[in-house]
Amino acid sequence: MKNLLFLVSLILLISTNISAQSKNDKIAAEIRKVMDAQVTAWNAGDIDGFMRGYWNSPELVFVSTNVTRGWQPTIDRYKKSYDSRAKMGTLTFSDLEIEVLSKDAAKVLGSWSLAREKDNPNGKFTLIFRKFKDGWKIVHDHTS
Amino acid sequence: MKNLLFLVSLILLISTNISAQSKNDKIAAEIRKVMDAQVTAWNAGDIDGFMRGYWNSPELVFVSTNVTRGWQPTIDRYKKSYDSRAKMGTLTFSDLEIEVLSKDAAKVLGSWSLAREKDNPNGKFTLIFRKFKDGWKIVHDHTS
Repeated sequence: MKNLLFLVSLILLISTNISAQSKNDKIAAEIRKVMDAQVTAWNAGDIDGFMRGYWNSPELVFVSTNVTRGWQPTIDRYKKSYDSRAKMGTLTFSDLEIEVLSKDAAKVLGSWSLAREKDNPNGKFTLIFRKFKDGWKIVHDHTS
Repeated sequence: MKNLLFLVSLILLISTNISAQSKNDKIAAEIRKVMDAQVTAWNAGDIDGFMRGYWNSPELVFVSTNVTRGWQPTIDRYKKSYDSRAKMGTLTFSDLEIEVLSKDAAKVLGSWSLAREKDNPNGKFTLIFRKFKDGWKIVHDHTS
């Protein structure tokens, strides 16, 4: 009886872990999809499409040297910094490490790189995603 | 009866919100305490003390231009970059915005500044804290 109880507990424990892991894998896949869509939009010269990965809120936070607050100032900043197709270059995200923090929060560490005719700016980012009714969105982006 | 039910629901809703808010305030206070202890340690020239705010794990992530992984490489980096009291200067953290993401995860946006004899390096950081048995610790630091 004791052995049976142990076995049942073990099976429950393992299946709970598997279920949590598969939930996290599902979240990671959803986030990856959002970021893939951002890359596709960017490389089509579509900053509006790229911005669909961000939370459309005045509370959106974008950190580089300074802090930009809000969706509108963030898109304005992108459109000002990348006002031609040549400046936008070809974007790649790589080395993505997605860690699920809760059922509605996750962090992503990754590398970004722009292949352009004359240079190749690149760096690292930390993103915080949160889940909304319309899916996972970046609420905080720290890029360096 | 309908009105009574409405009233009871409203009271429950409000008290749940207040309780969640006070829990978040408690977490924010705990995190603030960890960061205050870091500043005190730094300004006493005590990098080991400063590092007690970080998760002592090979999985600790420190991002600036590059990614440093693990507690030991992170403390080594600090000790190499700040190998004299003069280089350490006087540290200030300011503009702290603590957002609780779940019962065991939080993000902090803030500014850092070093007052030194000849310069005043400064910047922004995004921290991810997680709660462990021995309290809240930084698991991910993106500093620029």
